[in-house]
Amino acid sequence: MPADNNLDLVIRNADVVTASDRFQCDIGVRDGRIVALGQGLPQGNREIDATGLLALPGGVDGHCHLDQPMPDGMRMADDFFTGTRAAVCGGTTTVIPFAAQEKGASLKAAVEDYHSRAEGRAVIDYAFHLIVADPTPAVLQDELPTLIRKGYTSFKVYMTYDDLKLSDREMLEVLDVAREHKALVMVHAENSDCISWLTDKLTGEGRIAPRFHGLARPAPVEREATHRAITFAELVDVPILIVHVSGKEAIEQIRWAQGRGLKILAETCPQYLYLTADDMGLPGDDGYEGAKCVCSPPPRDPENQAAVWRALVNGVFSVFSSDHAPFSYDDPQGKKLGGSTEHSFDHIPNGVPGIETRLPLLFDGVARGKLSLHQFVELTSYRPAKIYGLYPRKGTIAVGADADIVLWDPVRKVRITNSALHHAVDYTPYEGIEVTGWPVTAFSRGDMLVSNGEYLEPAAGRGRFLEAGQPEV
Amino acid sequence: MPADNNLDLVIRNADVVTASDRFQCDIGVRDGRIVALGQGLPQGNREIDATGLLALPGGVDGHCHLDQPMPDGMRMADDFFTGTRAAVCGGTTTVIPFAAQEKGASLKAAVEDYHSRAEGRAVIDYAFHLIVADPTPAVLQDELPTLIRKGYTSFKVYMTYDDLKLSDREMLEVLDVAREHKALVMVHAENSDCISWLTDKLTGEGRIAPRFHGLARPAPVEREATHRAITFAELVDVPILIVHVSGKEAIEQIRWAQGRGLKILAETCPQYLYLTADDMGLPGDDGYEGAKCVCSPPPRDPENQAAVWRALVNGVFSVFSSDHAPFSYDDPQGKKLGGSTEHSFDHIPNGVPGIETRLPLLFDGVARGKLSLHQFVELTSYRPAKIYGLYPRKGTIAVGADADIVLWDPVRKVRITNSALHHAVDYTPYEGIEVTGWPVTAFSRGDMLVSNGEYLEPAAGRGRFLEAGQPEV
Amino acid sequence: MPADNNLDLVIRNADVVTASDRFQCDIGVRDGRIVALGQGLPQGNREIDATGLLALPGGVDGHCHLDQPMPDGMRMADDFFTGTRAAVCGGTTTVIPFAAQEKGASLKAAVEDYHSRAEGRAVIDYAFHLIVADPTPAVLQDELPTLIRKGYTSFKVYMTYDDLKLSDREMLEVLDVAREHKALVMVHAENSDCISWLTDKLTGEGRIAPRFHGLARPAPVEREATHRAITFAELVDVPILIVHVSGKEAIEQIRWAQGRGLKILAETCPQYLYLTADDMGLPGDDGYEGAKCVCSPPPRDPENQAAVWRALVNGVFSVFSSDHAPFSYDDPQGKKLGGSTEHSFDHIPNGVPGIETRLPLLFDGVARGKLSLHQFVELTSYRPAKIYGLYPRKGTIAVGADADIVLWDPVRKVRITNSALHHAVDYTPYEGIEVTGWPVTAFSRGDMLVSNGEYLEPAAGRGRFLEAGQPEV
Amino acid sequence: MPADNNLDLVIRNADVVTASDRFQCDIGVRDGRIVALGQGLPQGNREIDATGLLALPGGVDGHCHLDQPMPDGMRMADDFFTGTRAAVCGGTTTVIPFAAQEKGASLKAAVEDYHSRAEGRAVIDYAFHLIVADPTPAVLQDELPTLIRKGYTSFKVYMTYDDLKLSDREMLEVLDVAREHKALVMVHAENSDCISWLTDKLTGEGRIAPRFHGLARPAPVEREATHRAITFAELVDVPILIVHVSGKEAIEQIRWAQGRGLKILAETCPQYLYLTADDMGLPGDDGYEGAKCVCSPPPRDPENQAAVWRALVNGVFSVFSSDHAPFSYDDPQGKKLGGSTEHSFDHIPNGVPGIETRLPLLFDGVARGKLSLHQFVELTSYRPAKIYGLYPRKGTIAVGADADIVLWDPVRKVRITNSALHHAVDYTPYEGIEVTGWPVTAFSRGDMLVSNGEYLEPAAGRGRFLEAGQPEV
Repeated sequence: MPADNNLDLVIRNADVVTASDRFQCDIGVRDGRIVALGQGLPQGNREIDATGLLALPGGVDGHCHLDQPMPDGMRMADDFFTGTRAAVCGGTTTVIPFAAQEKGASLKAAVEDYHSRAEGRAVIDYAFHLIVADPTPAVLQDELPTLIRKGYTSFKVYMTYDDLKLSDREMLEVLDVAREHKALVMVHAENSDCISWLTDKLTGEGRIAPRFHGLARPAPVEREATHRAITFAELVDVPILIVHVSGKEAIEQIRWAQGRGLKILAETCPQYLYLTADDMGLPGDDGYEGAKCVCSPPPRDPENQAAVWRALVNGVFSVFSSDHAPFSYDDPQGKKLGGSTEHSFDHIPNGVPGIETRLPLLFDGVARGKLSLHQFVELTSYRPAKIYGLYPRKGTIAVGADADIVLWDPVRKVRITNSALHHAVDYTPYEGIEVTGWPVTAFSRGDMLVSNGEYLEPAAGRGRFLEAGQPEV
Repeated sequence: MPADNNLDLVIRNADVVTASDRFQCDIGVRDGRIVALGQGLPQGNREIDATGLLALPGGVDGHCHLDQPMPDGMRMADDFFTGTRAAVCGGTTTVIPFAAQEKGASLKAAVEDYHSRAEGRAVIDYAFHLIVADPTPAVLQDELPTLIRKGYTSFKVYMTYDDLKLSDREMLEVLDVAREHKALVMVHAENSDCISWLTDKLTGEGRIAPRFHGLARPAPVEREATHRAITFAELVDVPILIVHVSGKEAIEQIRWAQGRGLKILAETCPQYLYLTADDMGLPGDDGYEGAKCVCSPPPRDPENQAAVWRALVNGVFSVFSSDHAPFSYDDPQGKKLGGSTEHSFDHIPNGVPGIETRLPLLFDGVARGKLSLHQFVELTSYRPAKIYGLYPRKGTIAVGADADIVLWDPVRKVRITNSALHHAVDYTPYEGIEVTGWPVTAFSRGDMLVSNGEYLEPAAGRGRFLEAGQPEV
Repeated sequence: MPADNNLDLVIRNADVVTASDRFQCDIGVRDGRIVALGQGLPQGNREIDATGLLALPGGVDGHCHLDQPMPDGMRMADDFFTGTRAAVCGGTTTVIPFAAQEKGASLKAAVEDYHSRAEGRAVIDYAFHLIVADPTPAVLQDELPTLIRKGYTSFKVYMTYDDLKLSDREMLEVLDVAREHKALVMVHAENSDCISWLTDKLTGEGRIAPRFHGLARPAPVEREATHRAITFAELVDVPILIVHVSGKEAIEQIRWAQGRGLKILAETCPQYLYLTADDMGLPGDDGYEGAKCVCSPPPRDPENQAAVWRALVNGVFSVFSSDHAPFSYDDPQGKKLGGSTEHSFDHIPNGVPGIETRLPLLFDGVARGKLSLHQFVELTSYRPAKIYGLYPRKGTIAVGADADIVLWDPVRKVRITNSALHHAVDYTPYEGIEVTGWPVTAFSRGDMLVSNGEYLEPAAGRGRFLEAGQPEV
Repeated sequence: MPADNNLDLVIRNADVVTASDRFQCDIGVRDGRIVALGQGLPQGNREIDATGLLALPGGVDGHCHLDQPMPDGMRMADDFFTGTRAAVCGGTTTVIPFAAQEKGASLKAAVEDYHSRAEGRAVIDYAFHLIVADPTPAVLQDELPTLIRKGYTSFKVYMTYDDLKLSDREMLEVLDVAREHKALVMVHAENSDCISWLTDKLTGEGRIAPRFHGLARPAPVEREATHRAITFAELVDVPILIVHVSGKEAIEQIRWAQGRGLKILAETCPQYLYLTADDMGLPGDDGYEGAKCVCSPPPRDPENQAAVWRALVNGVFSVFSSDHAPFSYDDPQGKKLGGSTEHSFDHIPNGVPGIETRLPLLFDGVARGKLSLHQFVELTSYRPAKIYGLYPRKGTIAVGADADIVLWDPVRKVRITNSALHHAVDYTPYEGIEVTGWPVTAFSRGDMLVSNGEYLEPAAGRGRFLEAGQPEV
């Protein structure tokens, strides 16, 4: 290592874990990138001793919502500052939220608007997924190809929600663009008509409490849409990724497709490991706190939780994301409103917060022997980085990669409580759960943002936009 | 048997085969019904010797189209006279064609119109399925319940064809009416948007010949809709019947559902046993005779044919129907038109004729040892009669049943040729196929309509409308 | 009906149910056979009014053990008299127990000995299955072919029990004989080595109580042997019948094979519908009455019970038998012995009695809407008669069939209690269960053996041996 | 990097690929281990420029036979010298052949004997699997636990071959030892009795040519044993690895087990990707060269080949090995003998050579886009090293790992021909196949053994025995 190439930072005695490897060495960082892994590296300008800690690539949260424009007076509690602050405190160093097209508007406008929300606010790096809600010919033939070239290589489509859902024909057309331009489509798979029919049945019978949210979206509703999306991918001959898979029926479809050789990727989230339908029936202090756990697809039951854990281990899932949806409970248009006796469950904003708790909740599975450290890295960092075109800058600890490194204390026990979290949401659905393992120190491009559990107040806006490359599925 | 109860007809030495039993006896008929099965029955007014022949319950064709009003100048070649004449010459003594609602019109009007087409024409008994194309509140809440009470207890819905298809929501609503009023819904399961997208792709590339019809409706298109229909039935908790299943992918879905305990019934047709996609590519004299074999779902390949045979044997299918669709080839708006170089395959009227050949084509499978005589009776007569609410009048040879009896010569070899058939269509897709076994003599309510292969010219209009009872699935 | 052909018996106003049909008529019997079914039959020598009752073909119990020679001082409580008496009181008019070869002895000797046990004792007709325990070349090449010709067309092989089990090679050889000579092999499918290994583990740990019987034979042990037997049948290309299937894992294998087009038949028994593993843990008065419910494969749990019901309905099972194993509880070598603290569970004679309760227990499923009357007849009478070569003499009510007819009161409620049963076993595992529907009157070849629930003391020995024909699978 | 820590070797500008990562850097080696990965490493004593080449971890061949004592006068052509020479020329730097117990002898003796065969001969590092052929109490309770502690942590059992096969009970006992002492059992899964029965049938009919080998071991024979082995693993609750899986039927079983959460690992080999049953029917010059392709399980057909490729990609397989079985064709007891007209196919020594061609044949799949470079490394090096307890010394390029590095030219085209190979077998079954990609330079612990395709004649015996650690599955 030539003398004129001083190291900015050396992390000593790191117990490095990547998606496949584990090795003891020093990590040398220069200009925000890892330039050397070795035993006995020369002195750096800054030295950190990682003895006793695991050095993991920073998490990549491939599915989270931050400051997304919402209809009907709803608002998200987290903007890019609070959201990315919470993320890095939870061991995540890259986020990929959604630039969402409104029906009738252009995608380009959505992207421009979303950049203006991120700039000056984000403290870690970020890329954007697109949400395609109105695939007009202009969008399909012009906007999407252009945006893909510019580094927006993944987009999400919805099979439900009136303001977002695409028809089958529109889905085929979006998939076809993805195939031609080598982008990746993420699919929210639930059958819209089934949900609306069941919701009308339930509310017509006065069954409006939060827990009926689960009955309005039973597993076959998700299974059907999953099967349908797989069929579209098969016909178009393009990979897709099914997001937030909740349980065994959808898993069975995905695994069946994978066995046939189709490139069907899948994601799950902490809520399907830790919550059940019963949580949506919890009364809480005001009688309807179950609303806090309302998300779509809904949490199922312990048998489904076990199926999700199993599918994390045996390769059905590639990605473990938060689907962070920062709706406060006690807010004018918040989750409480829909939970109240005046409104039915379908008025509850869907989704739960989780950007900070995602990694510790899964790491606890490592501590309990359910999955390996390598699987943890693969699901939370490596594979999202690959799949969303951010590798090799993100997703690993290797020469040439960004120095997005998180030091984990694998034995530290932490009881999750919202008051200790850094998001702007007024609750966490995981209140009171104790986990083993915690991300104590975090670097983003070599900058230490969290030290021994303390957030260090870096400049808001230091995070940079990442142009995504071609997805590697 | 009291002396004042003379028998109108005695069929002597019959080798009777029902869905489960086989026995040798005389069959005594009075007032159109079977009143005695026994050895040495007393003399009847008419005596028929059935020595050497099998006596089978007359076929019930649970899926055929006769004189159905068509859009766009298309017309069906068979009315109720030629269609039922052909049916009985092929061993079928009951038909159940479709009274089809037009979008914007009432179901009741369709039923009334259809009665006027049948009366005075049909030579054998008939019931009506309904086609629900426009499930308005009036239809759902009033017309359907009323019609079900009046003996129209089965109805068909379409997941494709622009003038017929229902949305997912509409399907759920129709199924819910069926559940409440104990009717049975038949489903044409193909994904409409996939077909239109593929069709546009193909025709956009100039691939317009009849054989591209198959590429526009590949197996996953049928499989997806089948899975979706099953999901609707599961959510509504009601049996359904998937019509004209073409091959292994859809079969796999149906069998999966049956294994879970869902009441998913299924039907297949001769075209899926005897035709393949290659037949749609046959040039013929004019270069596009392949159009003659165009139907939906399309014929597949030999591996799928084998799967259909297997599913006939192992219980996946309950019903074997003709789906007789009497469009002539050489007709102003006939199948030839769409086959020509000026028009693309999607202008070809869908469907093949088969009302007369249905039973001999399946019976040949009995002769070849593929299925048992009892399975033959079950699939072609007994189960359709049960499922469509016509049992015990139709579907068996038992005391009390209508004397709809067909005498089969099980060893007679016949080469199928259109000139020998009795329908009004100008071709048969089975031209030249030799089968073993033929229905030589046929009785409808004790009246002999066919004798030793000759049609006896009964009065047009002797056939009666059958009010269907509750389906037994 | 000629005057010189008087009827011996006429059953008036019968509501006849067969495997497929249901009709109202009189049943005329002469010389022990049904000669006429009709409305207003002439006067018979004996007249029975069946108004309000169902007339069903008498049950065929295709799997029961009577007076079978046992090793180790064990004895069966029922001989052919008490066993067949109990059978007919429970609505069964034909039994097929087992002539069991001993290792080292000939099959012919077993058959001769078994005839001597049946003659003069049986009150209803009977055929014999063979048990092949020692397939020497003489047995394979000479004895089996000869016995098949003489009317012993089904035989059972064991994959477990030291004194009975065959090696894989022996199984293949026996199957090959069955293929060549058109016999049917029944298979007891459990992996012997797994059971012995688990048993040694459990007893080595002092876990000897009856309930550990279930842990020594968990579902995978049965599933594995089932898969293996299916493989043998596939390689030899011959149908087999898997007996006493206990739950979903074995069912899954069988259904998978059936879906592939293999002729794999299956049987289940009342114990898998009504008992669970917990019943083997019941203390009873003496602390180990759970031994009463020990059988192999063992009862499972409610989820498996549901799977067995489902498989009865959806066609996985062809036969519903008792597997009547008449070991008394309080007997020197009886079930109590093995249950006691001095002996481990593997000393308990395997099997439960059930020859008289088989039909009422399943009929109750008809009363509860779980299966149809036709399925009841099919599973308990028609299919066993067909499969074991006794049709059309047995298994139906049709002209020419033996007049083995049972009149059922479909609404009579009966609480099962051993004191009211007619076998010689000192307990029933179904004590206290109330069922709806009871066989009140029974005819064997036209002779009334049971009248309004009372056994009429016919001559012991009136039952005849039935030479079985070729199995129809 | 302190000045007194000179590097022995620096590989410059390497395009490093591991199981998960790819990065450009220099690789620094000292004392046979990798000590630094970095940009601009200091000068080493030896410098290699890897520009344009891929640097991959050396292959680990987890299944090969070298100098294994054989019965019946058969001999293996390759000893540890020729075998390991061929291995390294094909890009493999670690082999794990088998120390095979003879029935009646001790395992310890087998291990000692095998060490004497390896020492002084091997040119690359090696570990030993054990073959347990006679699991006496002494073996189970004493030898195996002792050997596991000493670094023999994997052992193979056979379900076929008379001199090797275990009974079901013995398999359970061996698995139980593995569970307790954390070893891994590899299973050769074919049903012995089925094979012997089919073989006797075939040879009895005079069907003795090599191609009948395939008919004697059809897919169900392998599927059955695979299902059985899975059941044993499930009952004992221990991972197993199914070796040399040949096609879709066994794959289906393994994938089913994996989906249920069982730790069932699986291996396949080049012969199942490149050979078919037809190859065993090739006449060659002498009429029976098909014998060259005889191995067990036998090659299947193109549909099965496709299934094996698919299962390599979708995670069913963890390991890709050679199953190198070095029997020469033209040898007194060689493969030709069994192929000749005087002997039947069951006299042909089973197995094909492949230790040198394994990696290029799979790499060609990378070149053709069938699998990724990372999957290649995972299947051929990383996972075998992990599973067989050799990681992190072997299986990766990381700080601290042995410098077992192979430089691949990814675009070099090579036509395989036996004359260019380095084993001592007189043929290769892959003669004439052209592959893209070749391992041009190979290092073992930093020693260059192959340079630009030339074998450098290192000292025989430089290879060291590796004590294996606990398997990581």
